[in-house]
Amino acid sequence: MTELGVVYRNITRTESHLADQLAHFGSATVHEAMGRVGLLAPYMRPIYAGAQVSGTAVTVLLHPGDNWMMHVVAEQIRPGDIVVAALTSPNTDGFFGDLLATSFQSRGARALVIDAGVRDVKTLTEMRFPVWSKAISSKGTIKATLGSVNIPVVCAGALVHPGDVIVADDDGVVCVPRGVAEATLAAATQREANEGEKRAKLAAGVLGLDMYKMREPLAKAGLRYID
Amino acid sequence: MTELGVVYRNITRTESHLADQLAHFGSATVHEAMGRVGLLAPYMRPIYAGAQVSGTAVTVLLHPGDNWMMHVVAEQIRPGDIVVAALTSPNTDGFFGDLLATSFQSRGARALVIDAGVRDVKTLTEMRFPVWSKAISSKGTIKATLGSVNIPVVCAGALVHPGDVIVADDDGVVCVPRGVAEATLAAATQREANEGEKRAKLAAGVLGLDMYKMREPLAKAGLRYID
Amino acid sequence: MTELGVVYRNITRTESHLADQLAHFGSATVHEAMGRVGLLAPYMRPIYAGAQVSGTAVTVLLHPGDNWMMHVVAEQIRPGDIVVAALTSPNTDGFFGDLLATSFQSRGARALVIDAGVRDVKTLTEMRFPVWSKAISSKGTIKATLGSVNIPVVCAGALVHPGDVIVADDDGVVCVPRGVAEATLAAATQREANEGEKRAKLAAGVLGLDMYKMREPLAKAGLRYID
Amino acid sequence: MTELGVVYRNITRTESHLADQLAHFGSATVHEAMGRVGLLAPYMRPIYAGAQVSGTAVTVLLHPGDNWMMHVVAEQIRPGDIVVAALTSPNTDGFFGDLLATSFQSRGARALVIDAGVRDVKTLTEMRFPVWSKAISSKGTIKATLGSVNIPVVCAGALVHPGDVIVADDDGVVCVPRGVAEATLAAATQREANEGEKRAKLAAGVLGLDMYKMREPLAKAGLRYID
Amino acid sequence: MTELGVVYRNITRTESHLADQLAHFGSATVHEAMGRVGLLAPYMRPIYAGAQVSGTAVTVLLHPGDNWMMHVVAEQIRPGDIVVAALTSPNTDGFFGDLLATSFQSRGARALVIDAGVRDVKTLTEMRFPVWSKAISSKGTIKATLGSVNIPVVCAGALVHPGDVIVADDDGVVCVPRGVAEATLAAATQREANEGEKRAKLAAGVLGLDMYKMREPLAKAGLRYID
Amino acid sequence: MTELGVVYRNITRTESHLADQLAHFGSATVHEAMGRVGLLAPYMRPIYAGAQVSGTAVTVLLHPGDNWMMHVVAEQIRPGDIVVAALTSPNTDGFFGDLLATSFQSRGARALVIDAGVRDVKTLTEMRFPVWSKAISSKGTIKATLGSVNIPVVCAGALVHPGDVIVADDDGVVCVPRGVAEATLAAATQREANEGEKRAKLAAGVLGLDMYKMREPLAKAGLRYID
Repeated sequence: MTELGVVYRNITRTESHLADQLAHFGSATVHEAMGRVGLLAPYMRPIYAGAQVSGTAVTVLLHPGDNWMMHVVAEQIRPGDIVVAALTSPNTDGFFGDLLATSFQSRGARALVIDAGVRDVKTLTEMRFPVWSKAISSKGTIKATLGSVNIPVVCAGALVHPGDVIVADDDGVVCVPRGVAEATLAAATQREANEGEKRAKLAAGVLGLDMYKMREPLAKAGLRYID
Repeated sequence: MTELGVVYRNITRTESHLADQLAHFGSATVHEAMGRVGLLAPYMRPIYAGAQVSGTAVTVLLHPGDNWMMHVVAEQIRPGDIVVAALTSPNTDGFFGDLLATSFQSRGARALVIDAGVRDVKTLTEMRFPVWSKAISSKGTIKATLGSVNIPVVCAGALVHPGDVIVADDDGVVCVPRGVAEATLAAATQREANEGEKRAKLAAGVLGLDMYKMREPLAKAGLRYID
Repeated sequence: MTELGVVYRNITRTESHLADQLAHFGSATVHEAMGRVGLLAPYMRPIYAGAQVSGTAVTVLLHPGDNWMMHVVAEQIRPGDIVVAALTSPNTDGFFGDLLATSFQSRGARALVIDAGVRDVKTLTEMRFPVWSKAISSKGTIKATLGSVNIPVVCAGALVHPGDVIVADDDGVVCVPRGVAEATLAAATQREANEGEKRAKLAAGVLGLDMYKMREPLAKAGLRYID
Repeated sequence: MTELGVVYRNITRTESHLADQLAHFGSATVHEAMGRVGLLAPYMRPIYAGAQVSGTAVTVLLHPGDNWMMHVVAEQIRPGDIVVAALTSPNTDGFFGDLLATSFQSRGARALVIDAGVRDVKTLTEMRFPVWSKAISSKGTIKATLGSVNIPVVCAGALVHPGDVIVADDDGVVCVPRGVAEATLAAATQREANEGEKRAKLAAGVLGLDMYKMREPLAKAGLRYID
Repeated sequence: MTELGVVYRNITRTESHLADQLAHFGSATVHEAMGRVGLLAPYMRPIYAGAQVSGTAVTVLLHPGDNWMMHVVAEQIRPGDIVVAALTSPNTDGFFGDLLATSFQSRGARALVIDAGVRDVKTLTEMRFPVWSKAISSKGTIKATLGSVNIPVVCAGALVHPGDVIVADDDGVVCVPRGVAEATLAAATQREANEGEKRAKLAAGVLGLDMYKMREPLAKAGLRYID
Repeated sequence: MTELGVVYRNITRTESHLADQLAHFGSATVHEAMGRVGLLAPYMRPIYAGAQVSGTAVTVLLHPGDNWMMHVVAEQIRPGDIVVAALTSPNTDGFFGDLLATSFQSRGARALVIDAGVRDVKTLTEMRFPVWSKAISSKGTIKATLGSVNIPVVCAGALVHPGDVIVADDDGVVCVPRGVAEATLAAATQREANEGEKRAKLAAGVLGLDMYKMREPLAKAGLRYID
């Protein structure tokens, strides 16, 4: 059961060499490397284009309109972490702005992923502190109710455990469970190795139909060409 | 009751020194300074990033798919105004484009806030005429039905009276009623005065937990730390 | 009836001199020139700002979560085409990424218009391959079911026949049926001819109320001015 | 400005003979009688079909996920009132259930109109306590923050002052400002007087085209019939 | 191209024995019989449960907030028709109420399918005039702009030609093009013939896995059972 | 990580005496008894009103537009189970109809909870097989891709493990993890014990303000009454 009012201080983070390297591949390749699972809903959008990061998740569960726990989670951040904030019910208020970003950044956080709203996006962009959020909103929040820190959370439809790896870029956000980070890194590396050759062929005009040998299965499935 | 078919020519605008200064603080600070009220819904987004304006509201009520009153409101614009356009029922058509923007700009309008769609956004961006809207759409409109100008309107869920101050930036749009503009400016000034010091502390690694003295109330509320 | 499992190889494209020239006018003017019809829903957004294109439609009908037919349509692309992808039911998965874009671009495609999601948007932006889509999503797809290529499709609420002209820019996407492309080009040319003069007048402070002679019809409709 | 933390005890209610009679006409006729204004957004739906009520508004402004003020507003209810609950930001939690309904009903409330969620809808239906809401949700709320009672609120996009008349049925919810209640009742009565005759004609096969004499204006507008 | 301002008086309706019989099978079976195409978007919901109808489409294209053409289409209705109303841009206003329903019913219309809102739903339910709509709304409309009658329209994402068959029930609305009505009826009849036997087997505890011989293909696809 | 292509045959179900008794309390009370967590999103609605059930979860993960695994999960159903179906990406197709319902019912399933669409709702209602779904849609599905059975899934934003208890009624759906079912039952029983007395007091006109002793904390929070 989702516990409320607790902060887990000792979490097992994915080893940093794994967590760090996954950024390179981007969310789409990593998601494919995992077998096409682990993605957060596509309504999670970056506040500015071009950021591409990975890091270890510290999680926080918030109540609608209440960002008290954002201050609690700040203390649990270690360099290389990405804060993943989930809500107990849908809300678009601005839970996070430039002051919290300054605090998170000084603790070593690489990004925030939040299933709600954020504000001060112009300043966050200048600070180069990337955020993936559901909304941008000036709406302030109160500090009245306890949520939790470093419990498993469902963020934008995806289950995230503290210590998992988060990979985020312009395409979206993916969560790589700690237990499969190594295998995922290997699979992503292999996928990418093939991409250059494929790209060259396609650029030269070779069709995917031929490169992937799809003509036969398409015909078998009944595809008819009509002139 | 919402009157249809009327244009109020004489409205009492917030004094310009108040209306002008509020831009500096941005929508989030102003919204906080007012006690966390007055915000338009977060679906109102700027057509380009980086604009930050304030001005006095002239309002217009439109029918879905009909922009006739946009020409009527143009005449009521004075330098320093921001046009606030509300609709009688939800619609995303493009009520405003580069020609109307040229007219609005020549009358001294600083921006448009519209709970509907706009078009010609590339040209509007080049003109640096900022617009906050619900949608971007090429869909043209007709000129057939009377709405009203300078009556109180509900725009994106917020009540706006003609003459109120509108503050808009990348975070959203807030309406400051005329009667509280002075107090809001004072409160916003005070809020900002404290921000520099706070930011420096947070950047130096001081936690919000300590800076805001939250540890005791959190403990009182029952927060448990688990190692 | 919508046929499944067929590929029409011979389609009649709008003459290229018509298809090419329409880009210049942009989606809003073209849509007006057609009598305010033909627009795709405004949720279709460009993955990067500033692209403005036109071209002849090759169409593809896809099933949710299955991009097999994207490889089939690639073979049917000729230089100057724009691929229009419709779905049999709503879906936001990423049907298209940098490899397919490389293939499409090498075949001469100018753009993709897809009523679903795409990914690798950073790379697509670097390649300057413009896409108008409903979503951006890392979510991968399978290759299991037959759709069709070059049948009439309903894409984002608009009917598109293969060979029609697609015009797309920051304001949205419009479909110009082949049979009216010539008349639309003429009408758009004429509309634009008048715009410069209008813009100059409006910039000089002339009101639309006077320029368009609206005062009398507004009065007739009952508009009252209140001082 | 929207005041927070206040309860206005003395409000001027529309006279009960006006407030009571408007129910008879239903929301559509009343909305037309007012000149097609005053409607709440159509996402406000009744929790059961068939209820048709009117009454005087007592208003309450709530924060997301916090129903403390629902207990405060209960005390301000007088027989014949309808509670109108607005939120400071969008939220679908269940702010109201059978216990509050028992309390409201014992105070003489006729209905609840709430721009959020409610629960215990099976029991509410058995109690015949009608509710128009944005959502149905089991999600409970906290009691931590002050809103206000009997201030003007924007509920589902419509401005409601305490003491206004609310008319609600299966078609939706309309707010009749106190100052126009009498005129609206008169106009609604007149509208309905004509309906019986019209209905009889239409049932007999007379076309609206003829009954409303639309053929000439349609022809003037350019309608062409093609055989 | 979508023509505006025209009424086609002579349309070729699907033969009534075909149009009438399809109701029996319901929208799901008919949609399957057609090869899983032709469905309107699932946001189209009946105003009351239990109606199941089919009939020949007469189509009407409306502008947002304007129901003038509903009176024009009324004259084109023949017994056995179903009116299909599409919009030029999304809108939820109430375009249709009890008076128009009386008129439509007296002309022999069996139902209305409208990609917008309707009102007077309590009376429509008492009249047993079924409507499938996107919304229910008291919002009235104006009569100012020309649309068209009996042109091909895109309604809720589906292409409908005048004379096609519409099948609608609690599951949704499907459009059967005139040219495939006969084949669809035959296919639907055959599908249903098998259903009784299947249902009996499943009720007796036979698994679909066995009845449809799925175990082998599942194993081939790699399904693993873990104890 | 979410495994694809696996079926767990041996799951540990919550003891039936616990799973069975929770239905009595309904989703709102159970959700409160758990500390206000565990709810599925409120867009999950029953296909007919009045059903109130509880049972042990068997889970299935489906791909958009593909219901193959629904046949696989059928075999894993035991009397007293409720099938919980999650999707890998959002989709509203009709994954379930009367044939599958016959099979599920014959295996002893009490209900289906599915984050997608269903069809044949009239027949399902007649069979009294309750379903909570995101949509109703005639849209058929294919049988081409492997998902999984009895893995942990995120359904409508809530994490569900196989063997957990599902409680569903007109207010929504809540998941009670197996490990807290007993404590939740105890807490729910206690909550309900107090409700009768409270209801009697409120019905007699006692205010919640007094019954819950809220006047003092409200005053402390700063609530002002204005006459």
